[in-house]
Amino acid sequence: MRPPVSAYGGFRPVRSSNLIRTFSQPLFAQSIRLRSTLSKIWVPTGGVSATEGETGHGKLIRAGFLRQAQSGVFQLLPLGLRVQDKIERLVDKHMQNLGASKLALSTLTTEELWRKSGRLDKVSPELFRLSDRKGVPIMLSPTHEEEITSLVASTLKSYKDLPLKLYQITRKYRDEIRPRHGLLRSREFIMKDLYTFDLTVESAVETYHDVAAAYSAFFSDLKLPILVAEASSGDMGGEHSHEYHLSNAIGEDTVASCSSCGYSANDEVAAARSSRQLEGTISPSNFGIWRGITKDRTTLVNVWYPRLADEASSDDGWNIHAVKSVVPELDHSVRDTETFWKEAIHQAQGQSGELRLLNVIDSRLASAFEDLSGELPLFPTGLDIDNIPQTSITQTPAGQDLNLLRIMDGDGCPRCETGKLEIHRALELGHTFLLGTRYSEPLEATVALPQNPRVQVPVQMGCFGIGVSRILGAVAEQLADDKGLNWPRAIAPFEVVVIPSSGVNEQTLGFYDSLTKRDGVATGLDVVLDDRKEAFGWKMQDADMTGYPVVIVLGKAWRERGECEVQCRRLSVKENVKAEDVPRTSLPKGLKSSAAALTIGFHLPPVNLDTLEPQQLAQVKKQLEEELEHLTTSFAQLHGAQNKFKECLRCVQARAADSKGSKSVLVPLTNSLYVSGELTSTETVLVDVGTGFMIEKVVLPTLRCAYAASFFIPQPATDS
Amino acid sequence: MRPPVSAYGGFRPVRSSNLIRTFSQPLFAQSIRLRSTLSKIWVPTGGVSATEGETGHGKLIRAGFLRQAQSGVFQLLPLGLRVQDKIERLVDKHMQNLGASKLALSTLTTEELWRKSGRLDKVSPELFRLSDRKGVPIMLSPTHEEEITSLVASTLKSYKDLPLKLYQITRKYRDEIRPRHGLLRSREFIMKDLYTFDLTVESAVETYHDVAAAYSAFFSDLKLPILVAEASSGDMGGEHSHEYHLSNAIGEDTVASCSSCGYSANDEVAAARSSRQLEGTISPSNFGIWRGITKDRTTLVNVWYPRLADEASSDDGWNIHAVKSVVPELDHSVRDTETFWKEAIHQAQGQSGELRLLNVIDSRLASAFEDLSGELPLFPTGLDIDNIPQTSITQTPAGQDLNLLRIMDGDGCPRCETGKLEIHRALELGHTFLLGTRYSEPLEATVALPQNPRVQVPVQMGCFGIGVSRILGAVAEQLADDKGLNWPRAIAPFEVVVIPSSGVNEQTLGFYDSLTKRDGVATGLDVVLDDRKEAFGWKMQDADMTGYPVVIVLGKAWRERGECEVQCRRLSVKENVKAEDVPRTSLPKGLKSSAAALTIGFHLPPVNLDTLEPQQLAQVKKQLEEELEHLTTSFAQLHGAQNKFKECLRCVQARAADSKGSKSVLVPLTNSLYVSGELTSTETVLVDVGTGFMIEKVVLPTLRCAYAASFFIPQPATDS
Repeated sequence: MRPPVSAYGGFRPVRSSNLIRTFSQPLFAQSIRLRSTLSKIWVPTGGVSATEGETGHGKLIRAGFLRQAQSGVFQLLPLGLRVQDKIERLVDKHMQNLGASKLALSTLTTEELWRKSGRLDKVSPELFRLSDRKGVPIMLSPTHEEEITSLVASTLKSYKDLPLKLYQITRKYRDEIRPRHGLLRSREFIMKDLYTFDLTVESAVETYHDVAAAYSAFFSDLKLPILVAEASSGDMGGEHSHEYHLSNAIGEDTVASCSSCGYSANDEVAAARSSRQLEGTISPSNFGIWRGITKDRTTLVNVWYPRLADEASSDDGWNIHAVKSVVPELDHSVRDTETFWKEAIHQAQGQSGELRLLNVIDSRLASAFEDLSGELPLFPTGLDIDNIPQTSITQTPAGQDLNLLRIMDGDGCPRCETGKLEIHRALELGHTFLLGTRYSEPLEATVALPQNPRVQVPVQMGCFGIGVSRILGAVAEQLADDKGLNWPRAIAPFEVVVIPSSGVNEQTLGFYDSLTKRDGVATGLDVVLDDRKEAFGWKMQDADMTGYPVVIVLGKAWRERGECEVQCRRLSVKENVKAEDVPRTSLPKGLKSSAAALTIGFHLPPVNLDTLEPQQLAQVKKQLEEELEHLTTSFAQLHGAQNKFKECLRCVQARAADSKGSKSVLVPLTNSLYVSGELTSTETVLVDVGTGFMIEKVVLPTLRCAYAASFFIPQPATDS
Repeated sequence: MRPPVSAYGGFRPVRSSNLIRTFSQPLFAQSIRLRSTLSKIWVPTGGVSATEGETGHGKLIRAGFLRQAQSGVFQLLPLGLRVQDKIERLVDKHMQNLGASKLALSTLTTEELWRKSGRLDKVSPELFRLSDRKGVPIMLSPTHEEEITSLVASTLKSYKDLPLKLYQITRKYRDEIRPRHGLLRSREFIMKDLYTFDLTVESAVETYHDVAAAYSAFFSDLKLPILVAEASSGDMGGEHSHEYHLSNAIGEDTVASCSSCGYSANDEVAAARSSRQLEGTISPSNFGIWRGITKDRTTLVNVWYPRLADEASSDDGWNIHAVKSVVPELDHSVRDTETFWKEAIHQAQGQSGELRLLNVIDSRLASAFEDLSGELPLFPTGLDIDNIPQTSITQTPAGQDLNLLRIMDGDGCPRCETGKLEIHRALELGHTFLLGTRYSEPLEATVALPQNPRVQVPVQMGCFGIGVSRILGAVAEQLADDKGLNWPRAIAPFEVVVIPSSGVNEQTLGFYDSLTKRDGVATGLDVVLDDRKEAFGWKMQDADMTGYPVVIVLGKAWRERGECEVQCRRLSVKENVKAEDVPRTSLPKGLKSSAAALTIGFHLPPVNLDTLEPQQLAQVKKQLEEELEHLTTSFAQLHGAQNKFKECLRCVQARAADSKGSKSVLVPLTNSLYVSGELTSTETVLVDVGTGFMIEKVVLPTLRCAYAASFFIPQPATDS
């Protein structure tokens, strides 16, 4: 027999699954042991003094995140490692969303592979090289194109194995000539490197765009304003390349971006229409000169750049990248050109036929060059050659004016006609390359074509880096203020610190637990309790120095009224919240009111969308999406309340309709025990309005529609 | 107004917290994207053939867990990296339980630190050494005592900073002379190294024991039978040392353990009373000899060991460690003793006064030595010295017989009088050292004494290693069978694989989701779905090769009756389970019935506790604890049921007592809506007996006590 238990309303017996938890002591003991408390974490502070104009790196050291082991080599202390781990987990998340598989390649690599790819000699000064006990030459990998290509080549069976996306997060090594700015340019560092393998160029380009989207999402989670710049592929080879930059004065890169069309490029590839002109008659003193020589040592390259009246055109104001773009055969690593030129003359035994002279002339000087060339030092002193074949370059290959001056704020955008370039000092945090067959061809990573199994083609590759250590250093640099570090929630060592103004007691621990667990399920909030035996003021200063996104103080108001103070320095928010409400609201009101709610991200002033760059627009888009999600969630909650109301309405209606019929009802005594009963009143109901109060309401026939209308439920007109 | 809602029984309105989840589309989309499916993971199989007598390492390669990059250097592929990550997380868990803080020290280290500690020359052949571009000598750290001591020395302010426990899990380097057995002896490997710092010897010893307990718990989670052996501290220095060994024929270490007293030591420190005697009259042919020389090159050391009749006493059957224990000044690295002795004679210019001869004589030969010494080759041919001072050693410093033969099965235990030693080939997975002030003194890690701030004392250190890469290789080696690898649950690449015999559809995905989530909360079960486009038979073989602890097949019974087959090769269990029951029972019955239930650990035959070694006893204790916990949980559930019954009883009693009084009751319509009612029947109740059925029961006055008695609730006698 099965009586209709739910005859009235949506009531259903609920099994209590808490019984087991209540009695399982081991679980309880474990949860105590697993509380994060600062007394258990080694954070060596003190002993290091703040310096005038302290950098982010200086703050990382003073706050106990890291220490230097030797020049360009660092020890990550527990707090620093937590940040690095969080960056790695964030990278993992976005790589896995992309469908990439994680592996770990060896640090030790062989010269043989790099010789095969033809890259050994090009990058050798930066390689750490050694020999093992048998004399076999070994290198510490700065990057892993050769290893991964050779690994994939050995396993590829068919084009059906493609596409492949493989990534790793490992230590890399580069013997920097001048390690500096701490983690920003170090000799041992952590990088994420992703390698992709496709059958066709088209799918490789598609993959390239998928990764670009993943990169945008990653940097957006970090709440960092990133510039995506067109870049040179340098020693990596390949066809397309982009850099992901954080605009910061400490940066060693220069990025030019157009305020009008969104063009953005690093200064290696950025060409510009110069806005600066020479005034008056051009004289020899307007000709600045730099001399170079070609890789084959046969051609002397004179670079003639304009000396302008203003101070900006100093002698290092010319642009080596602009010269390289028109003279690819220039050996830009040669500094002592005269010596090489002297040697070249010696080798040629006075046979001028083998040597040449190339003049690369800024467009502003071009018209005057021929007239004045007699007065210009075409050769280094004493190293003239008569009747040498001479050539001149005054335009870009595309026929545009040649601007040899370093790009400056206000120069014309090379892409659109109207835009002006803006110059940023920037930190490179990521770099992507479409490699093509640069590595798959020499290392023989090939597959047979689907349409013709006899034809083996090299696979199309891409490689994609993110500097994990560098992000740690860059975020410290970018977001620190005069009080200390300042982490975005996504990579903070802890999201929240709880600081009791006096000692730790049962209530403190209970409050901590209420933040980390709700109804026995972990909330996922990363909270740490400062239980160290230090003065309250010291702890508050230390929390500022460490840069937790949210600080919760349990002070006098806590002891007297059970209220705690929730602070967020980044958003200048400070408010008192009742302790029992914190787990529910959990964040200051200031955070809830903006898109930054859950992330403690940037607090952007009102913006004019027309003036934003594409990256900033993407940021705004992301924020709007978050707001949308917040609204969607709120709507869902409202919708839930509406459903609840509708259910009540249905019951009331059913009762009303049935008012003449049976009044019998099944009354639940416990979850599993029921008893028959009878309704005594069908005209009134009791409504639970929360906080333990109930209100008696009379069921009026008109009432139901009034309420319904307020929830915008369409009602048939005849029903009113 | 607040009416007594809960007047009858324990019913309380329950808020539905599922409303938000139901409507939050982004969360749902993410959960789909985050399903683990084998098509998304790069597992290159095939292309490698099985070999005769294939090792665990061979299987790791064939199953696509790793590949060799060069001699002793490996690339971890996605499955291998998953196992390694799980080992690391398990280490993290036990280190954090211990209260240790995690950091990350640099791989690049300087010779300067190693020179300070005096260790540079001792271990140099195994060090990878290089120079940077400025010519500064650099090394790849094989271990980090110097770095951590120097780091801690620079931050220690007071004894109040102690004790400190710091650990890391990083790549280490050792230029092995013969890398072999894959990850078991490689040149680049992952190790966990923990360093502890205490003020006093007593607290350092206490810390040492705490870490030993953590190590036991760690290896117990891995379900590996570990031998803990006393060991030599070798180049590390220090006073106490233990090795954690896995008994395995491929092992390169030898461990002797006593079947009686639990003594266990590696052969470097194990001394034994030999059970083998020389038979008959001793002749010169019974004297085996090995010659060595002391470090100061002044003393020729003759080692005289017995040549027994049986084959076991071959010429490499003597024990270098036994010799070193009585002649610490022996230079055991010298292989060409004659050359050095010749040189020594040359240097001494025939002045025999500076040179000495030391005879180390096995006790079995001691009595015959003097008589026969005229017939024995006391010097290398042609390198005699007349009247050289001679000394003999025939006993240990403790006065025991000197046994120079390698320890063998059946030799007498050096600790107890009755036990026999058993010899195991073993793999070293962990090593612990009580270092004392070996590093803190030269590297000046000192603190002022609490009782006298003017006295600085060096801190007491310990260091504790676990070979993470080696555990990966050792588990593969130890547990693989002829079908493939075989992982314990704690470190399996995935805990469960779901294999549909035909394609993947909505039902398959639904089944996967029911394993990974219950009531919207993640179960924590690590499940992967084999959605690759391969034949069913191939997938089953591949699952065996990969070694998942549990395989769930969705085959014919699944399509016809909704039943799936749950397999566990390790426990030889295979059973059909209704699909909807799997999330609840989730594991084969065979697993539930033993302590191995949740871990798929070892299936131990009945054991005689008297014959077990301490480590095995610890294992049994752990198992019993798990069973106890299981029983505790079951008891808690029973207790819950009892409480539920008591609550029902209370309601029935309250009703019965109140049967003359008011019958009014508040009937819940929904969670927040109530209506007044009246009970119609107080003689019967309806009991929910689960699965949707209810049974009507009459409330008898005698009934309640009968039930109560069956639950052992004490009842006043007057009540019956």
